[in-house]
This record gives sequence, structure tokens and C-alpha cells, in this order.
Amino acid sequence: MPSPFDAHLDPVDANYQPLTPLTFLRRSAAVFPDKTAIIHGDWRCNYRDFYARSRQLASALKQRGVGKGDTVSVMAANIPPLLEAHYGVPMIGAVLNALNTRLDPAAIAFILEHADTKILFTDKGFSAAMKEALALTKATPTVIDIDDPLAESGELLGDEDYEAFIAAGDPKFDWQYPDDEWEALALNYTSGTTGNPKGVVFHHRGAYLNALGSVLSFRYDADTTYLWTLPMFHCNGWTHTWGLSVVGGTHVCLRQIDPPLIFDLIDRHKVTHMSGAPIVLNMLIHAPEGAKRSFAHGPVDIATGGAAPPSAVIAGMENMGFKVKHLYGLTESYGPSTECVWQDDWDDLSFDEQVGKVARQGVNVVTMHEQRVVNPDTLEEVPADAETVGEIVLRGNTIMKGYLKNKSATQEAFDGGWFHTGDLAVLHPDGYAEIKDRAKDIIISGGENISSLEVEEVLFRHPDIMEAAVVAMPHDKWGETPCAFVTTVSKGADLSAADVIAYCRDNLAHYKCPTKIVFGELPKTSTGKIQKFVLRDRAKES
Amino acid sequence: MPSPFDAHLDPVDANYQPLTPLTFLRRSAAVFPDKTAIIHGDWRCNYRDFYARSRQLASALKQRGVGKGDTVSVMAANIPPLLEAHYGVPMIGAVLNALNTRLDPAAIAFILEHADTKILFTDKGFSAAMKEALALTKATPTVIDIDDPLAESGELLGDEDYEAFIAAGDPKFDWQYPDDEWEALALNYTSGTTGNPKGVVFHHRGAYLNALGSVLSFRYDADTTYLWTLPMFHCNGWTHTWGLSVVGGTHVCLRQIDPPLIFDLIDRHKVTHMSGAPIVLNMLIHAPEGAKRSFAHGPVDIATGGAAPPSAVIAGMENMGFKVKHLYGLTESYGPSTECVWQDDWDDLSFDEQVGKVARQGVNVVTMHEQRVVNPDTLEEVPADAETVGEIVLRGNTIMKGYLKNKSATQEAFDGGWFHTGDLAVLHPDGYAEIKDRAKDIIISGGENISSLEVEEVLFRHPDIMEAAVVAMPHDKWGETPCAFVTTVSKGADLSAADVIAYCRDNLAHYKCPTKIVFGELPKTSTGKIQKFVLRDRAKES
Repeated sequence: MPSPFDAHLDPVDANYQPLTPLTFLRRSAAVFPDKTAIIHGDWRCNYRDFYARSRQLASALKQRGVGKGDTVSVMAANIPPLLEAHYGVPMIGAVLNALNTRLDPAAIAFILEHADTKILFTDKGFSAAMKEALALTKATPTVIDIDDPLAESGELLGDEDYEAFIAAGDPKFDWQYPDDEWEALALNYTSGTTGNPKGVVFHHRGAYLNALGSVLSFRYDADTTYLWTLPMFHCNGWTHTWGLSVVGGTHVCLRQIDPPLIFDLIDRHKVTHMSGAPIVLNMLIHAPEGAKRSFAHGPVDIATGGAAPPSAVIAGMENMGFKVKHLYGLTESYGPSTECVWQDDWDDLSFDEQVGKVARQGVNVVTMHEQRVVNPDTLEEVPADAETVGEIVLRGNTIMKGYLKNKSATQEAFDGGWFHTGDLAVLHPDGYAEIKDRAKDIIISGGENISSLEVEEVLFRHPDIMEAAVVAMPHDKWGETPCAFVTTVSKGADLSAADVIAYCRDNLAHYKCPTKIVFGELPKTSTGKIQKFVLRDRAKES
Repeated sequence: MPSPFDAHLDPVDANYQPLTPLTFLRRSAAVFPDKTAIIHGDWRCNYRDFYARSRQLASALKQRGVGKGDTVSVMAANIPPLLEAHYGVPMIGAVLNALNTRLDPAAIAFILEHADTKILFTDKGFSAAMKEALALTKATPTVIDIDDPLAESGELLGDEDYEAFIAAGDPKFDWQYPDDEWEALALNYTSGTTGNPKGVVFHHRGAYLNALGSVLSFRYDADTTYLWTLPMFHCNGWTHTWGLSVVGGTHVCLRQIDPPLIFDLIDRHKVTHMSGAPIVLNMLIHAPEGAKRSFAHGPVDIATGGAAPPSAVIAGMENMGFKVKHLYGLTESYGPSTECVWQDDWDDLSFDEQVGKVARQGVNVVTMHEQRVVNPDTLEEVPADAETVGEIVLRGNTIMKGYLKNKSATQEAFDGGWFHTGDLAVLHPDGYAEIKDRAKDIIISGGENISSLEVEEVLFRHPDIMEAAVVAMPHDKWGETPCAFVTTVSKGADLSAADVIAYCRDNLAHYKCPTKIVFGELPKTSTGKIQKFVLRDRAKES
């Protein structure tokens, strides 16, 4: 016999609805119809029209036969059509795949095929790589051009224009909630630790919760004006694409990291919040003095992650009127899983001590169920002694559904009931985690993950190269760049570093290319595995 | 064949965990262990100890055989043990039933039996009614006394003391999350529109979401200090009992509405937020001038609902340093479903115009899926013309699981896929709802719902009364009080109003007793139903 607390008390429509971030835009359109939702150059769009344009997009996609489980890819800068796609695409149950605009044509071609893209929206500004990618890929999406007026150059590749495409849609289209909050919403490719990109699948439940959690972490409210210095293709802009609709905030679009323009926009639109990789902070600090502006409405909150911000960066930003918030997360965790929550008693510390506190990754955000630092073999928690290194593992509703078409990688990532970040950290006595060694193979350059294996694979294909190992090397501007250690075949004795770099630039996105090549024997373990930690030390010293 | 977005991408422990507000306290204990969680008189408890005491409570309950689906009732003022019960009880899967301290013994007896209470914690301050209730009820709970040092009087009824009880528990007890987020968490009795109290069942999912939504609505953060002027037995203090743990805020306990003490606590503890029925606002405004305090840290946010705050109340509160937020909701919706969101352009209106805006109930809170004003028969939305009256219906994850052991009432409440509030409203052109006529039979006195049917039933039992109809009558202090219209049997011609009132006070909680008795014929429809709307007009005129 069921408990009286269960009998006749099953979910029904009145008390159970799928959690989905689509509800946020519908509500903001009702509550704040005349409020500015999006600013792009001189163009402005209020919430009524943001919602109407998203519904038009959904309607137009449906007219073309796009439906549940179909992939719609968007290759675009941080511009209004990409924001609209965050709503219009899932309104018909389709899956949004926001492409990394820095990818090389081969990687784009792979993704379009792997994702089985039905419709591709492509921003004129990225036509060079996309044209090549479309020639390479086996995918045959309908290609629709986004002729952004602020794109400086590029050509139109498709047969149709985005504005004409959505004009055919119904602004009052009767879109549908997902049947299940576990349904796929977005697909984000990450280089991860292996060569081929992996397709991280987000679901509606996770995006809803992560958006709410982000609003809480960053304290967004109806007065929030968010400047898009973070790419929307990074975890859907860490879900702020949806989060701003929770509060009815204002998006300020931005095509590229242009420090004078950024200072100008902050001042002009009274920006309250932004986020980005540490490189963005560095670029702002090193902007020409004449380009910098002071702003009376500050401080401007800026969230950063990927690597701990150095003290000089924090000091530099604070001197310019910013407040830095340190985060940690991965694509697999919808962006920030972890935040360095400020403690009241840190107010009394010296600046250097404060920086030491803030440099740590911290504690799970409130919507992440749990974070632990564990022995990766036993899953036992390490002591909070600031010394014992363990792996950060995560568990909760803001962890991806899994990797698309990759059962084994999904199972491996979720081994033992936890998501394995691959990042190694210590736990401080106050419970804050601090990463000591990030996943061995990943190089983070200018905020972009570069898989060392992918670079190695290219190197391995060079006829004169016998062995190759790529590790991260510290770099003043980019944080890190790849450093390649190679051994040559006997006939390759004349191979120069410049030759190898030029070869890589022909075969890889430029940002993935090694900036330094070291020739010589590779250190190996007794079982023949290359000792990357030795190479990492050598790269640091060089 | 499943879609690639579903194949091998089922929920697992790593990416699916039940939503439960219990995670909030666990996190705050980890992140803010030394921060003050609870203040009660001179007693203070930090988050480490709040969590430890809650675990002790869970452990002690388990030792007594309490487990999943068992009811634990608490009759208490807003004191620390009731906050601890919000965590300790559900940690073992049991259901928290916070009793309305103003109930009469018969109603308490009914609830203890209906809820099948296994353990009763009872605050010495309410021993008079509880002693009678325990004599009346067929339930046989273990009775544990809460000997609150701030209770002014009362006797101990049970065999054990709360502090001794939890001392036997393990402060590191390995408690469990619910197996399913749909599991019952709390049971709150409402008088509703019919005589016998109905048991509204809350689940973990709804409480989690409502707590997050409340934090967003009220903008709670780590600096929030919340004064408990709202009874915790009202929708679990509108879920702020859990919401404060989202941000690591501070609870300031309060045994009763005592205006001088309230002003003192606001000033002493730098209170930032509070909430309560309009009567609380009235009592603060009418407090002796000598008792009022100005506070430099304000304004203090105060949320109120149940009836629109009159302009004099808003003005009076603002003059004293408060900011009034108007809400609407029901026990069935975990408290506020609806909030009057402030619009920027209201800043430019006159005070009277602002009050007109704020007097409306408004729009759904962000975590409530949807609110509509509909024709109750067709469920079609009424036009947003500020004239057409419809019923407010709600749908979403912060609607109760249902009524305990009451299938028909549950089905009726959820008829057509919406929760029917029974409140009649118009929709303004800006989409804000405004209640025009509350559910016909309910009288709201001092923030408490009184069922007219319950009062009528008592009247009907009087040997000299033939017919009775009870409606709300406006009252300066309490907002409303019951006004009874009665016809007497022939031998009752000598019955006086004072007789009837005295009889009611012997058989009902005092706050439910009519303050006015009118003798005479009752107006009826052609089918013989009493026309309460006529009586309501008469009560107003009288």
C-alpha cells in the first residue's frame, strides 16, 4: 500500500512542468515588454521583440521541417541572432550548436558532420573558415547567412539571409515546452583531453538550474547590463544567454575583444557585469592609456576562470574600476561549477593575502549538488590539509547529459557516480579547493582549450618527425601556448623549428600552433610512457 | 531507434540528483561555518552548529524509529528548534508538520490524528491548547517539550526535553537525500474554503525551487538578516526557512508580534528583510511613538500579502524606513506565486499612482511556471482590460503535491490541468493581475484564514439557531473579522448577540469568533442557496 503521502498524489499538469530556460524569456516579455533586452551597435531590441523574433525563428525553422532532436548550428560572433537562437531553436525541440568561431575548417567540418547539422546560420565575418569547412564536410545543411552590419568583411555563402528567413516566421508562433526536462537543448564541442572534439549535450533541466544559479552567484537583477566579452559559444556564454532573461537584464553585444570599444561600451551603457578568460583582463589592463575610461557607475563585476588571475591582474583591474570574481568550471558542467565565495573576514587581510584567497577555485556553486576532491582511484576524499593532491569530481543537475555518440567517453567521465574533471587540486582547511595541476594534456591559450594530442597528431604526420609531445608553456599574453618536444627521423636532421611551426600553421588553427619547438630525446617512464611533467618543467624554464 | 541525443544519455548519479533544500544547509555549513545562522534572544548559533544540531535531530528521530513518510509535528513559535526541524525531519525522509499556534484544541486534535503524527515537539508557550488537544485526539504521538527560555509561561506536557532528545543524536549523522525529488517534505494545514483543515503536501522539488525563487524575488544575499515576523507555520515561512540557507543569511527569531521588540531587533541586528500579513504592518505603524526607532542601515524590505496594503499603510511604513513589497499566494503554492514587480517608469509617478500600481497582485514569480486569469468554466484567458473578472489559476513546480488523504479535493483543485486559486481577479493591460473578490467563503483576519463554513458549523450546532451564514466584515485592526447572520428557532427568540459570541468562544479559537451577530431572514436564490454577496454588502454597511 502506498504511503498516504504518495497515494493519489502523482504529478499532473498543474503541479509538474518541465524545467526549461524558455520560460524565462516568455516571462520577461510579459513583465518587461518595453525594456531594452539587446543592444548591438545602434540597434536596440526590447523584450517584446526579442521574444517575437525568437518565435519567428522557431516558426521559420519548423516550416523548413526542423524538429525535435535536429541540430541547428550557428557560427557567429556575440550578436543578436545567436541570442535569438538560444530560444528559437529549442522552442521546437531542436538542439542549438553554437560553433567556436576560432576553429579551423577541418574541425568545423568534423563537427557539422558529427552533429548532423540540418540548418547552419553563419556570420559573414567567419566566411573564410566556413567556406572551407563546407567544402570539406560530408554534412549538407541548409546554409543561411547572417549579414551582420557590424561585420567588417567576409562574403555571403548561402542562398538566404537570416532576416528574410525569420521574416517568414510567425511572431505569435505557438511553440512548445519540451516533453521532458531531460531533453537535449544545446550541443557544445570541447577539445577535451583527446584529439577529436567531443559533443557535450546540455538538457533543459540543467540549463534552467544553471541559469538560476548564475543569477545568484553574480547577483543579477533587473538593473543588470551585461557586456558580452565572453563568447556565447563557451557553454552558451556560461548560460548567461538564458540567465539575463531571469531578471530582465540588458545584453550588450560585442563582435570581438576590442579594448577601446569595451571601455567605451562600459561607459556608454553603464555596464554592470561582464566575464571572460584571463586574457581578456590582460588585454584591458594593457590597453593604450588613451583608450581607457573611468566610469562613475562602477565597480563593474568581471568574472573570470580557466586559470587563477595573478595578483597583478587583480590589482590592475581593481585600479581601473572592476571587481574580479574567480570561478572554475568546464563545458561539461555548463560553465562555473565552483566559485571563490568571498568571506567577510577577508576584508581585513592585506591585498596580497586577499589575492592568495581569491586565487583558489573555491566551493561548489549553490545549484551544483556537490564537489569533492578525491583520490581518483578510491574516490575517497583527500584531507583538507592544503597538501594532498586529488582530483576534483562533481555531481549534480548541472552536469552534462553526456557526450554525443560517445558512450565510452560518457561512461568514463561518469565513472563511480561522479563527473571526473581531470583537474588536480588540494583542499584547504576552509574547504576551498585550489587547482595544482590541470588536466595533463590541456593547454589553455587565450581562454581556448587546446588538446595537446591534436597538435601531436599533426606533428606525427610530418614525414621527418618521429616522436612528438606537446605541453603548455607559460606565456605573458596568452597565459599558455603549446611547446612541442620532437625527435626527428634520421633524414630529418636538418628540420628547423621554423619549418615545424610553418607546417603546423598549414594544418591547424593558428592559435593551436606551438610557439616553440625543442629537439632531442624525450624522457620516458620504465613502461615507455612519455613523462610530460618533466617536459612541462623544461618548458617553464626555457 | 532513439535519437543520438538520447542514446546512452540516461540520468546517472553524476548528472541527476534529487532537488532538495537540504543541500542548501549542507553547503552553507561548509562555506560559512562560523557565520551566525540563528539569533534567539542572547543565544547565537553558527552554520556549523545549525547543521550539526539538525543532524543530531535527524539521528535522534531515527533512533526512535521515525522514518520515511512518518509525520513529525511541531507546535512552536518562531524559535530555533522549528528551524532545525525544517532540516532534521526531512533528513530521514520524514514529513514536517508545523502547526498553526493559534488553532483551537479541536483543530489541533483533528490534525494530529489526520496527519498520523508519530512525534510531537511542543513549545511550552502553547501548552494550554496542546494539553486539551492531546486529551481530545486519537493520535498517540511521543510528546517532547521545547522548554524555550523566552517562553513567558506554560507547562511541560511530555516526558522528555528537546535539548536532551537531540543530545542523544549524532552531530555527524550520515543522513540521506530523498530517493525522489517528488517525495513529501512538509505538510501544512489550511482552512481552505471548507470546514475541516486540509493537509497541503509539499515536495522536495517544489521547496528547492520556491526557495531559489524567493531568494531572487527578495534579493537575499550573504548580508541578509531576516527577522521572523512571519510565522514559520505559514507555508514554512514562505520557504524562507530554507531560502536563507541558499545565501548563508542570518535568522533573527521572534516569539510574537511585539512592536517595541521588533523595532529594537531591527536596530540591534541590522535587519534587512522581514515579511508578514498586513496586520503586522498596521501594528508597527500604530506602535507607541516611544517604542519606534529609526535605523541608519535601512530601508528594511518588508513583504506582505493576503490583502493589498492600503496607501496609508504603505506611506506609514515608508515614513518609518521600510520598503513594502506586495505579494500574493496560497499555502498550495508554497506561499508567493505572484509578485508586484516594480517597473522603472513607476519612479516618475505620484505617490498615489504608485500605490495604485503596487496594490495589484502582479505577475508570476520566476519559478512559478505560469499564471493566468481565466473564465473558470472554459479556462479561456480573460482580456487584459482591467474589467473582465476571471479566476487566477496557476501551473508549475511550486504547486503542492496535493491534499493528504483527500483525492477528490486534490482532483478538484487541479481540474483542467491548472490549480484553481478560487480568487477572482482582473487582468490589467500591462499583464498585472488584481484581485477583485477573494474566494467567497474565506475571511482573513490578522493574516489568518478563517473558514466561514467552520464557524457556521459551530453556529448550526447551537440548539436555538436554525440557519447561519458567516461573511467577512471590514475591521480596522484585523483587516476583517467574521460577521454572522443567523435565524433562530422559535424557542430561541430571546437569544442575544452576546450569547452567541460567548457560545462561539467556548467552541472555537477566539480569532475565529464572529464579532458581530445579525438576526433575521437570510437572502436566498431561487434554488434556495444563501446569497452571501448580499450579506457581505450588509456587513460592510453595518
